[in-house]
Amino acid sequence: MGCVPLLSDEDAAPQARAVFDDIRAKRDSDYVNNFWRALAADPALLASVWERLQAVMAPGALDPLTKEMIYIAVSVTNGCGYCIHSHTAAARAKGMTPEQHGELMAVIAMASQTNALATALQVETDERFRA
Amino acid sequence: MGCVPLLSDEDAAPQARAVFDDIRAKRDSDYVNNFWRALAADPALLASVWERLQAVMAPGALDPLTKEMIYIAVSVTNGCGYCIHSHTAAARAKGMTPEQHGELMAVIAMASQTNALATALQVETDERFRA
Amino acid sequence: MGCVPLLSDEDAAPQARAVFDDIRAKRDSDYVNNFWRALAADPALLASVWERLQAVMAPGALDPLTKEMIYIAVSVTNGCGYCIHSHTAAARAKGMTPEQHGELMAVIAMASQTNALATALQVETDERFRA
Amino acid sequence: MGCVPLLSDEDAAPQARAVFDDIRAKRDSDYVNNFWRALAADPALLASVWERLQAVMAPGALDPLTKEMIYIAVSVTNGCGYCIHSHTAAARAKGMTPEQHGELMAVIAMASQTNALATALQVETDERFRA
Amino acid sequence: MGCVPLLSDEDAAPQARAVFDDIRAKRDSDYVNNFWRALAADPALLASVWERLQAVMAPGALDPLTKEMIYIAVSVTNGCGYCIHSHTAAARAKGMTPEQHGELMAVIAMASQTNALATALQVETDERFRA
Amino acid sequence: MGCVPLLSDEDAAPQARAVFDDIRAKRDSDYVNNFWRALAADPALLASVWERLQAVMAPGALDPLTKEMIYIAVSVTNGCGYCIHSHTAAARAKGMTPEQHGELMAVIAMASQTNALATALQVETDERFRA
Repeated sequence: MGCVPLLSDEDAAPQARAVFDDIRAKRDSDYVNNFWRALAADPALLASVWERLQAVMAPGALDPLTKEMIYIAVSVTNGCGYCIHSHTAAARAKGMTPEQHGELMAVIAMASQTNALATALQVETDERFRA
Repeated sequence: MGCVPLLSDEDAAPQARAVFDDIRAKRDSDYVNNFWRALAADPALLASVWERLQAVMAPGALDPLTKEMIYIAVSVTNGCGYCIHSHTAAARAKGMTPEQHGELMAVIAMASQTNALATALQVETDERFRA
Repeated sequence: MGCVPLLSDEDAAPQARAVFDDIRAKRDSDYVNNFWRALAADPALLASVWERLQAVMAPGALDPLTKEMIYIAVSVTNGCGYCIHSHTAAARAKGMTPEQHGELMAVIAMASQTNALATALQVETDERFRA
Repeated sequence: MGCVPLLSDEDAAPQARAVFDDIRAKRDSDYVNNFWRALAADPALLASVWERLQAVMAPGALDPLTKEMIYIAVSVTNGCGYCIHSHTAAARAKGMTPEQHGELMAVIAMASQTNALATALQVETDERFRA
Repeated sequence: MGCVPLLSDEDAAPQARAVFDDIRAKRDSDYVNNFWRALAADPALLASVWERLQAVMAPGALDPLTKEMIYIAVSVTNGCGYCIHSHTAAARAKGMTPEQHGELMAVIAMASQTNALATALQVETDERFRA
Repeated sequence: MGCVPLLSDEDAAPQARAVFDDIRAKRDSDYVNNFWRALAADPALLASVWERLQAVMAPGALDPLTKEMIYIAVSVTNGCGYCIHSHTAAARAKGMTPEQHGELMAVIAMASQTNALATALQVETDERFRA
């Protein structure tokens, strides 16, 4: 499976290995997950994605768990199995309860349904919703 | 524009008119937006979607603003212009600040990017992410 | 609007003009809709799409109205406004009733919802569903 | 595989177990497929989806096989492997022939192609296609 | 796995078998990949797709490797694992280097991100971009 | 139209205004298109996207026109009208001929079609296509 090899620490170039080490340090875990090992064939891309991810997912006006749930919503709609699995695990690690997961599912299902209906009927946007 | 007419109160069947009235009462506003007027050609579908929407979006384990932002994330990814407009307006009405909107945009953009990369490389899911 | 000009009969190359004429003859109508006029900048592509469309949409094991409704379902899910409009018009011309349209909407909405849920939960396919 | 456990009858809560029993009764089969077992962690969501599915897929202005083929078309376009498998099996159980399956494939492929072209060229909708 | 059987040379109908033979001859390889074996249940569809594919992917105003990379970009965005795998292999066979693959990934990721942002903000198209 | 205002130079914050000026300098044009004016409400996001875009689209192992065509392919598949318009204009400015545009359309249409078929049949990936 996979279109590229998952690079081990030994096979990764030094710039990629440095990102692996930063992932370990920031997450306080020895584990580097497959997404980063797949990106490591292109160390500049790997570094860019990792840097940006940290900036985007840091606590700010939205808390980290809310951000994870938004991430899951996008990933579900894009049908990315890898991201659904990894961010569901991340959301649980950040405290998502089964009740919150259930409501997240219900909102995603509801939006998918009304998105389809509004698109199917080509409903014109109300003037009052425009900026 | 639109694939169906937007039914006025006068043109809507009694069952659809009753949903319009319930929307007005629950939202404490005289305005019924186009989505509901487009659905009104099929009163049973209209009633079903309106009932379910209220149940799903009610406060629960997730607060209403968080639900609106998840709704926006799905709608953006599905490319539903109507729903993006209406739920962005709804999120603002529920207190979404410009800073929160900016972070919502950033998370959606980030997820879209890593969804594409994980899919493009067909990265195999790590065993530890599975239930 | 549009990324290419909509070619008039005068501006279209002879091979494209021949396709316009065939569309008129087959549909027994003088009107050539915008999709074909946009494709006319590339007469070979225009001819290929028009030929294939006739073959695919001809009566066969499925009747033409059923094919139009399947076409609408795909177009809604892909979010193609042009195709939703044109194939909804075509389905009505082939006899789609408001009741059938309403049920088509309901099935599309239902599938969109369960697609999202099965994807969100990454449900493993049952052995008995495999060929 | 999967982001949630597939609940057995023993592990499911009574409200979820009641839905399992209803599925068995309505389908006249002892088998409860994985989708429902995955949803069972949230019995209210499970019950809501099951109720709505029965209403939508019941015979009406469209026959059940036509509804299944529309369901497949949406599921293919959304890329939901689970739903493609389960609804292809359901369509066959309702009598879909290989010829009908082949034509369904051809229509889905055709629509996917023209959806892409109309979107790529940003073709403006003809006035006559608007409601 | 799969919704249809992968037909062997023995099980394929003569018209399908002829397409298999043409694939072998044109590719100068004895191997017929699964996509064609899955389509073989409908020999007319199989023949049509194979004929069109050859015409589209032939050298022309764009070189074959550029066409393969465009094919990958579409397949990633549609989330088609099979096509991502097969066309990544094809691109490599046509000389795609790791550096080119890395830049292809970066462009796909960038476009996915700005597509999401332009959609999320519902940015109006500048007059100067219209044809 | 639009979910956010398009900020003029006067209304933009200094950090956003600096990005506008950099866009003008790098493009040697006084025009700043709507996408950047919509992003300007969040200057940090604006700056991040603009910086990354320049890095990704710079000449490298792939030439700028090839990158624009890949960008168009992703944008079409995501259904982003704004990006289709702006990157089609950009590709033309970089020398895309009508013949190249026609072949780009044909590849996008072909891929959309086989993506749908491979997904609809849930074709299993050939062992030889895996890394």
